[in-house]
Amino acid sequence: MSLEPLDPDTIDTAQAASEAVPAESERLDADNMLKSDYVRRVRDALEAGDDGAVYALVEPLHPADIADLLEQVEADERSALTRAISDLMGSEVFAELNDHVREALVDELSAEDIAEIAEEMETDDAVALLEDLEPEEQQAVLAEMEPEERAAIESALAYPEETAGRLMSRDFIAVNEQLTVGELIHYLRDNKDLATEFWEVFIVDAHYRPVGTCQLSWILRTDRHIALSDVMKRDQTLIPVTMDQEEVALRFQKYALISAAVVDESGRLVGQITVDDVVHIIQEEASEDILRLSGAGDGDINEPILMTVRTRLSWLVVNLGTAILASSVVSLFQDAIARFALLAVLMPIVSGMGGNAGTQTLAVVVRAIATNQLTSSNTIRMVLRELRIAMANGLSLGLLIGTSTALLFHNPHLGAVIGAAMIINNLVAGLAGILVPITLDRANVDPAVSSAVFVTTATDVMGFFSFLGLAVATGLV
Amino acid sequence: MSLEPLDPDTIDTAQAASEAVPAESERLDADNMLKSDYVRRVRDALEAGDDGAVYALVEPLHPADIADLLEQVEADERSALTRAISDLMGSEVFAELNDHVREALVDELSAEDIAEIAEEMETDDAVALLEDLEPEEQQAVLAEMEPEERAAIESALAYPEETAGRLMSRDFIAVNEQLTVGELIHYLRDNKDLATEFWEVFIVDAHYRPVGTCQLSWILRTDRHIALSDVMKRDQTLIPVTMDQEEVALRFQKYALISAAVVDESGRLVGQITVDDVVHIIQEEASEDILRLSGAGDGDINEPILMTVRTRLSWLVVNLGTAILASSVVSLFQDAIARFALLAVLMPIVSGMGGNAGTQTLAVVVRAIATNQLTSSNTIRMVLRELRIAMANGLSLGLLIGTSTALLFHNPHLGAVIGAAMIINNLVAGLAGILVPITLDRANVDPAVSSAVFVTTATDVMGFFSFLGLAVATGLV
Repeated sequence: MSLEPLDPDTIDTAQAASEAVPAESERLDADNMLKSDYVRRVRDALEAGDDGAVYALVEPLHPADIADLLEQVEADERSALTRAISDLMGSEVFAELNDHVREALVDELSAEDIAEIAEEMETDDAVALLEDLEPEEQQAVLAEMEPEERAAIESALAYPEETAGRLMSRDFIAVNEQLTVGELIHYLRDNKDLATEFWEVFIVDAHYRPVGTCQLSWILRTDRHIALSDVMKRDQTLIPVTMDQEEVALRFQKYALISAAVVDESGRLVGQITVDDVVHIIQEEASEDILRLSGAGDGDINEPILMTVRTRLSWLVVNLGTAILASSVVSLFQDAIARFALLAVLMPIVSGMGGNAGTQTLAVVVRAIATNQLTSSNTIRMVLRELRIAMANGLSLGLLIGTSTALLFHNPHLGAVIGAAMIINNLVAGLAGILVPITLDRANVDPAVSSAVFVTTATDVMGFFSFLGLAVATGLV
Repeated sequence: MSLEPLDPDTIDTAQAASEAVPAESERLDADNMLKSDYVRRVRDALEAGDDGAVYALVEPLHPADIADLLEQVEADERSALTRAISDLMGSEVFAELNDHVREALVDELSAEDIAEIAEEMETDDAVALLEDLEPEEQQAVLAEMEPEERAAIESALAYPEETAGRLMSRDFIAVNEQLTVGELIHYLRDNKDLATEFWEVFIVDAHYRPVGTCQLSWILRTDRHIALSDVMKRDQTLIPVTMDQEEVALRFQKYALISAAVVDESGRLVGQITVDDVVHIIQEEASEDILRLSGAGDGDINEPILMTVRTRLSWLVVNLGTAILASSVVSLFQDAIARFALLAVLMPIVSGMGGNAGTQTLAVVVRAIATNQLTSSNTIRMVLRELRIAMANGLSLGLLIGTSTALLFHNPHLGAVIGAAMIINNLVAGLAGILVPITLDRANVDPAVSSAVFVTTATDVMGFFSFLGLAVATGLV
């Protein structure tokens, strides 16, 4: 394949967007992803061994799109691709890459190369790159780094994973409140090695404790001679360095923060967190719940397949246990079933519908817990709410299935039994759906991980038991 | 209850955080939520009719926390609470309130009051407030507003719901590229009615089309005489005004944006979107998937209960249909079950495990589609990946349950039948789990809403059919 001029229509990226003219604006409505024929052209060029063509195709991409491209191609094409575009494989691409893909690429690099990439990164991205390495490899990389960068990363790694300390950047602007706006601007202009990525200036006291914050727009809109203490806002949301990243994300979301100061145990300013790092966490934490509820682990499509099988299989084996438990309830009623096989036909309806209703409640409760909407102040109200919903659903479904069964099989007794069992199992589903995750949460167990097993066990067991039990107890069989 | 001095320990808020001193810093690790004994004290004061005490308790709260408080108290306490703290019920509180709670409060206000609140809000929040009103009420409120605000809101309401046009703010800074840094700063200082909330300055050409963007930090760090054209970045992510909010959120996330320019069909700058508005969308969209997959609608715990029952019940009725379909498969085998009731005991294991495996795949695929990770470039690879996982899981589980059954019931034939059925149903689960959401997505149906019905129907029907069918076909019964 020869070197073709880049056709702007093949890529739907930010860059393409910036050339927006009327005729092209429709293209912007596409899907934030690389078009498939563009990816195919890159892969064709790779297969043809035409590195020049590959480079020409990839060169105009934003680093985030290069990361996307690396994720889109087959695993065995990635080495060839990175070789062809080695100039373009900057720290920003590594920062954007999926963990598993990055790990595979990093495995092929020397400690020196990794150190070089890490040094170009902001501290938080460098930490993300290094924290997954084997301890010896991590040491080797750190040894290759400049002392200052190294110290910053080591101090970040000293904080527990998924805390503010890992997430924060050590590049921020902090000044004394005696400064005027004009003096601050001079300070920023004259000191070339200060941070360039900042959205507010933190005002600190003599002990380096935050006393206020100035958004940059306030500074730009204020006269030079005004003191920062007259511009700054004193009410400021601080992030303790040991705070869990999920709580950091909720705090950013609640108070609509763009950046925030991170303080250590003694209240001293040690870093800043910016919202672009938090956005990923919000997305991840919300995705995590859906994936954990269904036992899919991280649900990362780039994860090595053996790891995925192990995660999913262990969940399935646990569920096999609960399925066997439920079927042992059925086995208590084998005689009744042998006499009246219609029971076996109808029993999955009762257990299945309970499972569906329980899952509904569970999904709502797990999200409400994760977003701090379900608190000890409103727990009782929420339990009563779910019970009322369960009662309403149970009565409706019980009436529906009970009447239909009675009419279809000319057997009002059977209709009454399945209707009553449906009501009972809906109540079980509602109660389990809310009490299980609340209880797990209070015991500091992530309710998304294990709630579903308990809830479906409850609805399966009680579904079979209520239906078959009522049938026998009321003399139907 | 008498007026007590506010005990700072009762509230865990941003304000409390800002007073951080060593002894108090542990408090910061709490849960981003109002403490329950604080909420109880507010409710006690409300019940005692002591509006002064209520006011004193609530006054130090951040607007976002006042909104939280209103959500935490019972629905019938909200009117009394808002009366007691009417001074504090500013536009920021309304902007932060849950939709349903806000709607209920707004119902009690006159058009004039609503207009007054809306005028204080940023356009995007005012639009969110007004878009849910009845058309006549909306007109009445708009009639009470200042012409300028009114025009801004009306133009936003002209865009479809959940698009960039609804989300954007019309307050932004745009200047010509001939300006120098010093001239820009003068312009910002001298024009008092310019926006105060902005994080970048957009540079536009004579036709008001964006040509570049300057982060405020770059401006602050550059000498006065430098031209903006030398400071600005030309590559810039633009948002078309009709873009869906979910795509807007993904674009912000992908390119780590703090704010972005919104352009109309002719490429002219018409607004800006800031990341704080996008953070809510990311959270909502990710939550939506989990709630829709489980048929829980919006899953909003503040939704009126009748609305919740309607949503959940309609999902359950659809599932009742599929459960009846599955049980009709069982009814084909009633004779076999009557002769050998153990089949009825074991059959829920096969169908249930298929359901679990299908849900795992479904959760992964739905998230991968929602985050643009599953594209037409890698669909085939992902289908093959899920099939391999399904095969590995099916073989493991089939072997496990097959051997156990053979040993437990001294019946190798029964073991072989359930083992084979388990393998078949895992493959069905894996295939349905990925093909159903992909097909729905291609047909422009939200895969989160309806995938689960199809997948569980497939795993239930095939679970029963493969197990009972194999039992009969191989002469076990």
